[in-house]
Amino acid sequence: MANLQRVAIASSQIEGDIITLTPDQYHYLNRVLRLQSGDRFIALDGQGQWWLAQLTAQLDAQLLDPIPISNELPLSVGLMVALPKTGMDDIVRQATELGVSHIQPLLSDRTLLNPSPNKLERWRRIAKEAAEQAERQIVPHIYDPVSSQTAWSIHPGNSRYICAARTESTLLLNAIESSSLSSPLTLATGPEGGWTPSEIEAAIAVGWRPVSLGRRILRATTAPIAALAIGAATLERIYSLKK
Amino acid sequence: MANLQRVAIASSQIEGDIITLTPDQYHYLNRVLRLQSGDRFIALDGQGQWWLAQLTAQLDAQLLDPIPISNELPLSVGLMVALPKTGMDDIVRQATELGVSHIQPLLSDRTLLNPSPNKLERWRRIAKEAAEQAERQIVPHIYDPVSSQTAWSIHPGNSRYICAARTESTLLLNAIESSSLSSPLTLATGPEGGWTPSEIEAAIAVGWRPVSLGRRILRATTAPIAALAIGAATLERIYSLKK
Repeated sequence: MANLQRVAIASSQIEGDIITLTPDQYHYLNRVLRLQSGDRFIALDGQGQWWLAQLTAQLDAQLLDPIPISNELPLSVGLMVALPKTGMDDIVRQATELGVSHIQPLLSDRTLLNPSPNKLERWRRIAKEAAEQAERQIVPHIYDPVSSQTAWSIHPGNSRYICAARTESTLLLNAIESSSLSSPLTLATGPEGGWTPSEIEAAIAVGWRPVSLGRRILRATTAPIAALAIGAATLERIYSLKK
Repeated sequence: MANLQRVAIASSQIEGDIITLTPDQYHYLNRVLRLQSGDRFIALDGQGQWWLAQLTAQLDAQLLDPIPISNELPLSVGLMVALPKTGMDDIVRQATELGVSHIQPLLSDRTLLNPSPNKLERWRRIAKEAAEQAERQIVPHIYDPVSSQTAWSIHPGNSRYICAARTESTLLLNAIESSSLSSPLTLATGPEGGWTPSEIEAAIAVGWRPVSLGRRILRATTAPIAALAIGAATLERIYSLKK
């Protein structure tokens, strides 16, 4: 189930083993996530119950199996992280502990070292070990690095936030709390020296929201951990209040 | 100003250079923080303005000087951290970046190595460097280690939270959001293997609140960073909403 998308539904949408999807939910599954009839996803009711579900040809979904209690976050949270000079091992380990669903390493304007295949293998091994130690059900996938320009076009349907220092942007916590939280989160953090202005502009141009992690300057290895801790805590808070 | 306590006041309490203190504020300054007439503290109005202030013999306070714009948190957040086997350097560095006001290393039931004076010197040097790099005005003080039993009696007037894994406790973010936030925060995180049940009971018995950092199991070096990121973000959110 590692790569199945999670979609929040209301208990009242379930009758027998059928979920009657709202037009928005169907649009999201079919157009945004590109799921077809027969494809599977995880439905969760925000009260701690998860199900394996399957899109049907009738534009609704069928519950297949309840999923035992999970330590995963109620919505997936992806991390796009500009590769730091050193410290990526710790980022992968700590992000995995905090519940990240996948990590996309970025080759930003200010970090142009391309990691060796050995490094990627090493990060994937670290993610697997950390997921087990953290008692997670999912091992986050570590994607091959891409340029930030390429990265900005990934997951256009997600709630995407780019963390930038020395701006008067909204605080990340405020931005997430005031969003509808119907789609997965993607959080991006920059390299030593920060994003270039043109990187931030390019992200904003395709729908990313600039956010602040507070008034202090965080190192490139601390920012992703702070962003994930805040993102995960906010999701868990919002879902805990829905109980 | 490194060790001055911060107290939130309302702008309406200021007339000329005098702050008329509420009975609660006076009690807090005098009884909880043990400040006497002539002692100094930092008054902040939650709108970004800080002043150096001084308790007077008339049970009010005098504004001495405005303090230029600050990257410090609106209330102080202290960390009590059970010493991990390795990784304390990173905890000190990252906690300082995130805005911690002081760090109290703990010798808990499950971590009985006593650090050498060299280690303490090293942590204090790391805190100083990290505070400068993070563009902070305050260098957090690193106290000499104490046992957890001793630690639970420190700062009885603060909002004190003990983070514990595998409990059904309130989430830290929920706990802080629903508190009045009139007093500084103190956050405690445990060692490898966690707090012992008797440590948690002893803390609760003297007013600490048990909280959860989420459903996943965090390492002893990740938990303090997650707790501080959440605590700092919540304080900045609450004060940003008061503007």
